[in-house]
Amino acid sequence: MESTKNYHMSPQEFREQGKKMIDWIADYYENIEKYPVLSQVNPGEIKASLPQTAPLTGESMEQIMVDVNSILMPGITHWQSPNFFAYFPANASGPSILGDLLSSGLGVQGMLWATSPACTELETRALDWLADMLQLPEQFKSTSSGGGVIQDTASSAALTAILAARERKTNYTTNENGCDGKLVAYVSGHTHSSIEKAIKIAGIGKNNLRLIGADANLAMQPDLLDAAIDADLKAGLIPFFVCASVGTTSTNAMDPLPEIGLICRKYELWMHIDAAMSGTAAICPEYRYLINGIELADSFSFNPHKWMFTNFDCNCFFVADRSVLIKTLSILPEYLKNQATESGAVFDYRDWHIQLGRRFRSLKLWFVIRHYGTEGLRYHIKEHVRLAQLLVDWVKSSDEFEMVAPAPLNLVCFAHKKGNDFNKKLLESINKTGKMYFTHTVIDGRYVLRMCVSQTNTNEQHVRQAWKIIQDTASEID
Amino acid sequence: MESTKNYHMSPQEFREQGKKMIDWIADYYENIEKYPVLSQVNPGEIKASLPQTAPLTGESMEQIMVDVNSILMPGITHWQSPNFFAYFPANASGPSILGDLLSSGLGVQGMLWATSPACTELETRALDWLADMLQLPEQFKSTSSGGGVIQDTASSAALTAILAARERKTNYTTNENGCDGKLVAYVSGHTHSSIEKAIKIAGIGKNNLRLIGADANLAMQPDLLDAAIDADLKAGLIPFFVCASVGTTSTNAMDPLPEIGLICRKYELWMHIDAAMSGTAAICPEYRYLINGIELADSFSFNPHKWMFTNFDCNCFFVADRSVLIKTLSILPEYLKNQATESGAVFDYRDWHIQLGRRFRSLKLWFVIRHYGTEGLRYHIKEHVRLAQLLVDWVKSSDEFEMVAPAPLNLVCFAHKKGNDFNKKLLESINKTGKMYFTHTVIDGRYVLRMCVSQTNTNEQHVRQAWKIIQDTASEID
Repeated sequence: MESTKNYHMSPQEFREQGKKMIDWIADYYENIEKYPVLSQVNPGEIKASLPQTAPLTGESMEQIMVDVNSILMPGITHWQSPNFFAYFPANASGPSILGDLLSSGLGVQGMLWATSPACTELETRALDWLADMLQLPEQFKSTSSGGGVIQDTASSAALTAILAARERKTNYTTNENGCDGKLVAYVSGHTHSSIEKAIKIAGIGKNNLRLIGADANLAMQPDLLDAAIDADLKAGLIPFFVCASVGTTSTNAMDPLPEIGLICRKYELWMHIDAAMSGTAAICPEYRYLINGIELADSFSFNPHKWMFTNFDCNCFFVADRSVLIKTLSILPEYLKNQATESGAVFDYRDWHIQLGRRFRSLKLWFVIRHYGTEGLRYHIKEHVRLAQLLVDWVKSSDEFEMVAPAPLNLVCFAHKKGNDFNKKLLESINKTGKMYFTHTVIDGRYVLRMCVSQTNTNEQHVRQAWKIIQDTASEID
Repeated sequence: MESTKNYHMSPQEFREQGKKMIDWIADYYENIEKYPVLSQVNPGEIKASLPQTAPLTGESMEQIMVDVNSILMPGITHWQSPNFFAYFPANASGPSILGDLLSSGLGVQGMLWATSPACTELETRALDWLADMLQLPEQFKSTSSGGGVIQDTASSAALTAILAARERKTNYTTNENGCDGKLVAYVSGHTHSSIEKAIKIAGIGKNNLRLIGADANLAMQPDLLDAAIDADLKAGLIPFFVCASVGTTSTNAMDPLPEIGLICRKYELWMHIDAAMSGTAAICPEYRYLINGIELADSFSFNPHKWMFTNFDCNCFFVADRSVLIKTLSILPEYLKNQATESGAVFDYRDWHIQLGRRFRSLKLWFVIRHYGTEGLRYHIKEHVRLAQLLVDWVKSSDEFEMVAPAPLNLVCFAHKKGNDFNKKLLESINKTGKMYFTHTVIDGRYVLRMCVSQTNTNEQHVRQAWKIIQDTASEID
């Protein structure tokens, strides 16, 4: 009567295969510099090597890993290579991978407090830890009026902030006929594209997003912001949201938070701070000044998955007033009702973000903080900045290259003096070799090379080697 | 000159600690039935056991695991226990955990094709596999006009569908002054709450969401839908979106797709199908009929993280016309420009969802499909249905209990005949014992017990035991 057939992997088989996978990953990190950093495959190559239909009968883990090695690995761009200097990083670490493994193994879904109290309460505690590490004002802690929550990405955090801002300004939830095309949001022309995307998603409309001019350092100009808000108010519009960047994506420009914050207070706008990569630096006392002015903000987000050794995805989103966030996003259907929720004594984090279901992400963050300690995290952040500043010195003392924007931390924006075509050719030639990988931006029509020094295992030798490659290649293609 | 200090976990240490973690997880699965399924802690208990501040100096993995065992484990609700029958499941499996581990280890961020071609192309292939396994119409495949993409949850997929629908109806991207309060969406009163949340997020406004009446089986009534759309059109509104459910959350009710689809075609509305849990069943030829009518749909989503042994989070979202989706969500700032994107020969999946960054989620899905084969997946789906139908038989032949809604698959909605208070007491008494965990819903004022039979390792013995516990407890509290 009882069925005995079973296609599942037994705990014993998992034990064996899991240890092989751990060895595979350890081997990968030991050999990671042997791979070309940027994948060298052509579009369609990987797909063409994969069967067109799913297997009818199951295959062994050995067969699968053969395909991982032969088919997939050539199509990997190695984000964890110490020679990866592209975009913003997504730096991982051993303790993070193990915390994530534990999360996958436990397989809990923490949408409600009741569906795994530890998933909610560890997150609350870990984000309060971070709030203290960042010296955030008291209102951003769960023990006060606000608190933090883990989101997948800074894009989702920004969207969430916009929705809460809309709620606070318009009582949207009780006034639910949709947006009326009068809400206006403000960013600088260098703010991350996710804000524009979120403004479109939220139905605010791209035409209601103002791009405020920047100064010579590519930071938002508060007087222009003030003037724009004033003009919109006079036109009968409803300004509601400003996003200030602590480190823009192009050049790591720092918007002036205290000035922007005062303007937001004056006009009662929601101030969101997007510190996706550079926010991590604020855990070092010497860089805490970067978020001075945060006491005037309504929300703040940064990504431990960028520069804090916590593998993707892990964005930390803090609000000063959680009640407006919960009012914005809470819907309680019958099948989710439970005593704990009704008691009001718990957080149900699904009311703090877009999604309902949620993974136990705080485990990896907690593993990282405990493994490194605040001391270890600070050490490596400062070391990355030191290495980036070495590069700044080399660029400045070079006859051929020059700095294009200030480098307050770990992102260096520079260019060869020979102009856009040369720089583009230089970048592409180097990336094609696979020896290192970096990317570009365009500032005022100028093609700019970007090097972000923040991969977990990048050390001085890698940065020296990168600079040598850049110089050598520039000579070769000259 | 070269810095030698280093707080990182070495590959060798990772090797050792990783194997211990694998053993921990294997032990966990071997002993999972010894834990109370529903965590028995009180609000605040876990948090109070965690230090109030982050450690200054790093701690060993051993210390961390001591706290996992002593502090966190009592706060876990065991979603992977074979005695978990609550909500919809989030069933994991060995191959999925290993695929996810590989994803964490590789640490690639697949926002663009170029940032790891394998991350994009494996996903494209795996979702085409799934399209075939589900016998989706050709237009849902990447080789035709559409294709699939992995999203985190069905909530995000629904929001994405709504945004694409808005785009198609209003040319929102080129007509960007925000929504005008005239767009109207339609669901049944039993549709998942995520649609209401998404409608609010997208600025459509809750008042512009129509709840269409359901029939005796709790399925949407097409004639009422047609009448509502007609009335809204006559009132000068703009109907644009319908969500049909293949398996509502409360009772697994099946909305009539062919009829709803024809109405959507008639009025040119976007038809989204939310098949979050039950969609998986359609990989079995005998249950494919559940998605008949999908040829009329614009988008379809289901969660391998619910009933297909792929650990959270993994939603598969298919569209018939990817061009409208990409038009809706694409923003290309300079720092993301690259040759592959400009060639148009590749997919950049960040244009298919809300977030920019993305994890290599297709690995775990691919591991699952290859490990089980279509055959193995079908076997276990059918076995879960068989077990649920045993329970249906027992309820039907019981004098004390009765079925409250049809049970087409693996969700059984039933109630003791003694009324709401008794059923509520019964549920809470049983869940408190920790021997099993199930949840409730309310249908037309009636408190209903829900048992979803779909945890990976649930077999006949667990379902028999659950039914015995329910009967015994009903007698005891009588």
